[in-house]
Amino acid sequence: MTPDEVRTQATGPTAGLAPGYAQANLIAVPEDWALDVLLFAQRNPRPCPVLDVTDTGSPRTVLAPGADLRTAIPRYRVWRDGELVDEPTDVTRYWREDLVAFLIGCSFTFETALARAGVPLRHVEQGRNVSMYRTDRQCRPARRLHGPLVVSMRLVPAELVAPATAISARMPAVHGAPVHVGDPSALGVADLARPDFGDPVEGEPGDVPMFWACGVTPQAALVASRPPFAITHAPGYMLVTDVPDSEYELAGG
Amino acid sequence: MTPDEVRTQATGPTAGLAPGYAQANLIAVPEDWALDVLLFAQRNPRPCPVLDVTDTGSPRTVLAPGADLRTAIPRYRVWRDGELVDEPTDVTRYWREDLVAFLIGCSFTFETALARAGVPLRHVEQGRNVSMYRTDRQCRPARRLHGPLVVSMRLVPAELVAPATAISARMPAVHGAPVHVGDPSALGVADLARPDFGDPVEGEPGDVPMFWACGVTPQAALVASRPPFAITHAPGYMLVTDVPDSEYELAGG
Repeated sequence: MTPDEVRTQATGPTAGLAPGYAQANLIAVPEDWALDVLLFAQRNPRPCPVLDVTDTGSPRTVLAPGADLRTAIPRYRVWRDGELVDEPTDVTRYWREDLVAFLIGCSFTFETALARAGVPLRHVEQGRNVSMYRTDRQCRPARRLHGPLVVSMRLVPAELVAPATAISARMPAVHGAPVHVGDPSALGVADLARPDFGDPVEGEPGDVPMFWACGVTPQAALVASRPPFAITHAPGYMLVTDVPDSEYELAGG
Repeated sequence: MTPDEVRTQATGPTAGLAPGYAQANLIAVPEDWALDVLLFAQRNPRPCPVLDVTDTGSPRTVLAPGADLRTAIPRYRVWRDGELVDEPTDVTRYWREDLVAFLIGCSFTFETALARAGVPLRHVEQGRNVSMYRTDRQCRPARRLHGPLVVSMRLVPAELVAPATAISARMPAVHGAPVHVGDPSALGVADLARPDFGDPVEGEPGDVPMFWACGVTPQAALVASRPPFAITHAPGYMLVTDVPDSEYELAGG
């Protein structure tokens, strides 16, 4: 599938779709909360690397110039006062002229490079959404926004932990190196089989859990901080952009 | 000199002072212009890499926890409606409770690494401020802010252009690789001997001019966009931080 085909036809999670193209998280808030979100992102660059910010009211992004942000994502979440009120597949009727939308890097973007290096992607193989967890680490607050770090988790054969770390480390704009490898309890995650977002994924003997900062972190901040209104993607249902993954890869050092 | 000695005692440009510690540009604006500045920076990361943003009204930065931003810089500029109205050495009397201050990376930060690689720093040797120029390249506008790219220029022996490029490229948070090497007219710079900011610097036979994106770019945007009030550093008179240069160096790829 091309990025445009994913944007117009996909109905499920987007991991593994349109390989080679960067994917992005969405959070749109009223303009009077935009500084809070942008500052929260600046202070928490691991979970919230900003790839683009729209002009107020505009559903257009430079990351996918032909796309309409109100329809290009397979599933959205609509939030009022920090409560999830709807999970539609189109947010045209919820869009407001005062919304500012933030597109934030997504770890699905380095999965093509992981696969190329022989790292199995268990969630893609099993046709499931990636597992995501709320951690016990707090983000650095910004104005009215605060909340915990959210991580995505991948089960990686022990001998591939080092290359998976090195490959992702070269892509800081899509979360970069893992924040933790090995012990879920070090992040306050009690049970890998019960993710807070996405699906449980089964590992194989010798697999090690690797945890990356996740662009669902702003959604946990919405719950904690209760702004009056927001629109986000649904976790794992991303905006597929027209930007090649390689755009976010650091040049050889 | 230590960073704190520079902050309390220096009276001139800060290039070459407290080697090994990162330096930063300052722009402080009223809160209702803060989103404009932060978005301008997000859209123009080469000239405007944001290292920290203060809480509204606070003159404290995580980059130098003991410092007071109203007195820590050797020379400031005060702006009203895009006009320079004062160049004091202390802005305590100009400070306002609604100001948000942005600390932006400075190319002086990679000069220690350049010197270590044998690249001569002509402006430091000559006891002058670095030369800076307004270019004919426009930044990507953000809300009410627009303006041209400003660059700093260093004259580098031709055989050291490649290492100087590679060394600076590894430090994107302090402007990274040069935006241009060789031909001033390609940037719309008519005469190297007449910089728009800082001092003229003399080269030696075989020197090549290298141009880096510069944190004075927001000052050119103030002139072009005329916000009601702003405080900045004076070009070349930087905040010396407590952060080691190495903090902004990418890990080996």
